[in-house]
Amino acid sequence: MAEYMPPKVWTWDKSSGGRFANINRPIAGATHDKELPVGHHPLQLYSLATPNGVKVTIMLEELLAAGHTGAEYDAWLIKIGDGDQFGSGFVAVNPNSKIPALMDRSGPTPIRVFESGSILVYLAEKFGAFLPTEPAARAECLSWLFWQMGAGPILGGGFGHFYAYAPEKFEYPINRFAMEVKRQLDVLDRRLAETTYLAGDAFTIADMAVWPWYGALAKGWVYEAAEFLDVQSYKNVNRWADLVFARPAVQRGRMVNRMVGEPETQLHERHEASDFETKTQDKVSQ
Amino acid sequence: MAEYMPPKVWTWDKSSGGRFANINRPIAGATHDKELPVGHHPLQLYSLATPNGVKVTIMLEELLAAGHTGAEYDAWLIKIGDGDQFGSGFVAVNPNSKIPALMDRSGPTPIRVFESGSILVYLAEKFGAFLPTEPAARAECLSWLFWQMGAGPILGGGFGHFYAYAPEKFEYPINRFAMEVKRQLDVLDRRLAETTYLAGDAFTIADMAVWPWYGALAKGWVYEAAEFLDVQSYKNVNRWADLVFARPAVQRGRMVNRMVGEPETQLHERHEASDFETKTQDKVSQ
Repeated sequence: MAEYMPPKVWTWDKSSGGRFANINRPIAGATHDKELPVGHHPLQLYSLATPNGVKVTIMLEELLAAGHTGAEYDAWLIKIGDGDQFGSGFVAVNPNSKIPALMDRSGPTPIRVFESGSILVYLAEKFGAFLPTEPAARAECLSWLFWQMGAGPILGGGFGHFYAYAPEKFEYPINRFAMEVKRQLDVLDRRLAETTYLAGDAFTIADMAVWPWYGALAKGWVYEAAEFLDVQSYKNVNRWADLVFARPAVQRGRMVNRMVGEPETQLHERHEASDFETKTQDKVSQ
Repeated sequence: MAEYMPPKVWTWDKSSGGRFANINRPIAGATHDKELPVGHHPLQLYSLATPNGVKVTIMLEELLAAGHTGAEYDAWLIKIGDGDQFGSGFVAVNPNSKIPALMDRSGPTPIRVFESGSILVYLAEKFGAFLPTEPAARAECLSWLFWQMGAGPILGGGFGHFYAYAPEKFEYPINRFAMEVKRQLDVLDRRLAETTYLAGDAFTIADMAVWPWYGALAKGWVYEAAEFLDVQSYKNVNRWADLVFARPAVQRGRMVNRMVGEPETQLHERHEASDFETKTQDKVSQ
């Protein structure tokens, strides 16, 4: 087979791309006019229960569980497979067209926040919770939070895409990203051999950011890659994954904006705490 | 050609991986005992002038230029091609074995900070500079900072690897990552059509994080991909890239821990402001 030679200038071939190719574009901006709905709570979340989306719903449910009533929120569904993220209203909140995106309408001027890590820091600082203020503990928490931001795209955009979604199994990318994901799991495993949670003794936004990706990976919930990556060998990651999953707020957070799994685990929109009552939390196992 | 079928359980084949394969491993932790050097300033940086490393040296030089004398630092070279990041001393500062890593020795107990984004936030909060404290402006700055953390691995670990470093030109990954990098450039271009800097009127840590990657890409400094990605068409990114590059502190920051380019642009270690005096800043053009 003759080696591929890239052209001088890249051009867009809409026919390639594998699963989800229809929502990948080389240009930014809105494709259509569409306003976002606005509920009556201070915080308006526009999201979907992907690992990045779940980070924020876990945080909001944890804040409410800790008594921060100002964290009441409306969670609206953004169907990324349908291109909702390219509506003009969504792009105004997040010009990067990715979930999750948050509008804080508690003050005189609404504040937009995008990127899951940025939303976690914003809420942590707004409510003074789940992010230490003492410099050393804060640095440790933020270092692990930022670790996830850099690690996640290699897991999701690299390994997950090539192992699970690409139109064929390409050996070199699968090998490359599997090696890196195994290294990431080992980084976490060694850290979690030393401490209960990632940043130390306390559950923080670092855990909320890392668990939806690497906890889910350890539990075999994503990419059907548990055996391939030998995830059960990372004992401390598994210990921590179970510990986090045992939190009721985490289980509620996983149900919000969820469109897969058994119907009683899917809370497509969340507007009141009572919305969970008709749902069965302990069924959210994948 | 028969399609590749991944094995049930991934195993490490040390013979594959392309350029830099010798420093990629599926396991974490130290490979050898080696203490890190410690200079006489409060801040000890262990780094290399890659885009991630340059973010922090730009920040430190900007802080010093703004009169924050507490930001005096020693910058030590970590030769990642030689595996310095796997020495026991480095792993104790950053268990993820990536540059940059910072030790703040200004207090009674040293504080470790790792991940470039975390170091930028740490220094911004320590000195009260380059990160707004008003909630809306702070959210905008942090959202763009976190945007870079998620975008960068797609540019560096995705596009850059497959376009420039992989052992052969694989069409599908090059196409996939080129599309996403062009989308990222367009996100930035539309934002920079509205504002002078990424977070608004002021130069912030968001610019310091994004510029070493996307400013360098716009200037054709990385991956020899300027024509392929048609970077000159992103006019606002180019305007901003030049604006940031015109800052003397940015030019100094790019020289620190630098091992490529003309000898007079390489300041392998930085211990005093006067270390720059024998160097020629305006030669640092790539």
